[in-house]
Amino acid sequence: MSLRLPHRGWLVDLDGTVYRGEALIPGADAAIAELRRAGRRVAFLSNKPLATRADYAAKLTRLGIPTSADDVVNSSLVLARHLARLDAGAPVFVIGEPPLVAELRAHHFEVRADHRVRWVVIAFDRTFDYAKLDTALQAVRGGARLIATNPDRTCPTEDGEIPDCAGMIAAVEAVTGQAVEVVVGKPSPIILEVALKRLGVAPADCVIVGDRIETDIVMGKRGGLATVLVLTGITRARDPRIAETSPDLVLGSIREIVEPPHQ
Amino acid sequence: MSLRLPHRGWLVDLDGTVYRGEALIPGADAAIAELRRAGRRVAFLSNKPLATRADYAAKLTRLGIPTSADDVVNSSLVLARHLARLDAGAPVFVIGEPPLVAELRAHHFEVRADHRVRWVVIAFDRTFDYAKLDTALQAVRGGARLIATNPDRTCPTEDGEIPDCAGMIAAVEAVTGQAVEVVVGKPSPIILEVALKRLGVAPADCVIVGDRIETDIVMGKRGGLATVLVLTGITRARDPRIAETSPDLVLGSIREIVEPPHQ
Repeated sequence: MSLRLPHRGWLVDLDGTVYRGEALIPGADAAIAELRRAGRRVAFLSNKPLATRADYAAKLTRLGIPTSADDVVNSSLVLARHLARLDAGAPVFVIGEPPLVAELRAHHFEVRADHRVRWVVIAFDRTFDYAKLDTALQAVRGGARLIATNPDRTCPTEDGEIPDCAGMIAAVEAVTGQAVEVVVGKPSPIILEVALKRLGVAPADCVIVGDRIETDIVMGKRGGLATVLVLTGITRARDPRIAETSPDLVLGSIREIVEPPHQ
Repeated sequence: MSLRLPHRGWLVDLDGTVYRGEALIPGADAAIAELRRAGRRVAFLSNKPLATRADYAAKLTRLGIPTSADDVVNSSLVLARHLARLDAGAPVFVIGEPPLVAELRAHHFEVRADHRVRWVVIAFDRTFDYAKLDTALQAVRGGARLIATNPDRTCPTEDGEIPDCAGMIAAVEAVTGQAVEVVVGKPSPIILEVALKRLGVAPADCVIVGDRIETDIVMGKRGGLATVLVLTGITRARDPRIAETSPDLVLGSIREIVEPPHQ
């Protein structure tokens, strides 16, 4: 067996690339094992702020890909790190779920339930409601700034797509008349920088493997990485954007990063 | 006493023009009484879908302006009438509050709690939440179309501004990737047509009195009505848009539609 690409670093998307819901993409475990056996550095990259890095690591381990929390980079972690650089320890109001709040607290932010804050953090939030939208409006009227985890319209689940962070961002922008300053998740260079630092490789020595053109492939192209689009997630083989963005490889599944033995 | 304008029909905005919250704008009762005494036809026009027309009439009556429900035209009524022309009796999912649901039921629509509908009706909804956003997404994926009551970003209250319908519209458009086809409230010609029909006057023989440039004044100008901007609501005297839109009259308050007796 041999790998189709020689790069030392491998950034691997999760949803639609390694698993769908609770089901492993067949062969993803063997492909990751082969990368590791060959001495490649692997990190997992997700825009989802709905679970902690430890949760993602536990899920991967359960599915047959032993992983530690440090090998996972998600938008909650990146947002907390980025905001710590902009305004360390600031009072923040969070449109988001408990794992994001925990990550912000772990980075020493003062998470408040009212509008007396310097930042409104907007994330994929299945508990989003009018009261949170109102608090965000009052915060912005008091001078708060806006930052968000990820730009995705919808999130694929086993039961179909559900509303993602773009819905929360749009609602807040519409009522406040103020634009979100930074969206840290893919395709932002901010999450890429954190991931490359984690792997300790240069962009030119790194591959990104993912199922979404507008996040995984666009970010990889802009950042100077090799790009591998897999067709196990949101993108269909006939999508005209494949030709427009021209990933280095288009594979039916992540299992195909390993070439079959010659006959 | 005499009126500053000779027109037979008068369309009068409510919030910020006749009252603010529960408080009558001083002199609004006498001004309306003078219009009626002089034989002018008066209807009240509101973008708010949070109460029934009967509720608005009762409030006006309580504040000293005796009014019947038929004299009130609000965005719920106009939406129900407009949708009845487009798709009478259709199954609909409503992002909105009980008075809007009641108006739709009174117009024989099948209001459903699930996504198996032909229309998603989007309104100012203080009970908006993620579950409603998700139902709207699933409805649109099943082919449903989008219609909305009003385009306002925020609604002024006695305690400040709160999020209005623009927040709900933006969230649904962002996650579905589909634009709202019709927003019936001011400044749409749809609500103006209903109001003019109610008064039985031509646009050139009608005045609109309101506090919002982007809805009341813009709609009046486009529709060929005389326009009176009052400064008791959202618009400040120094607003540069006043010169841009040039209302026929800019008054400190609706009370000034009546000229003081000559000395």
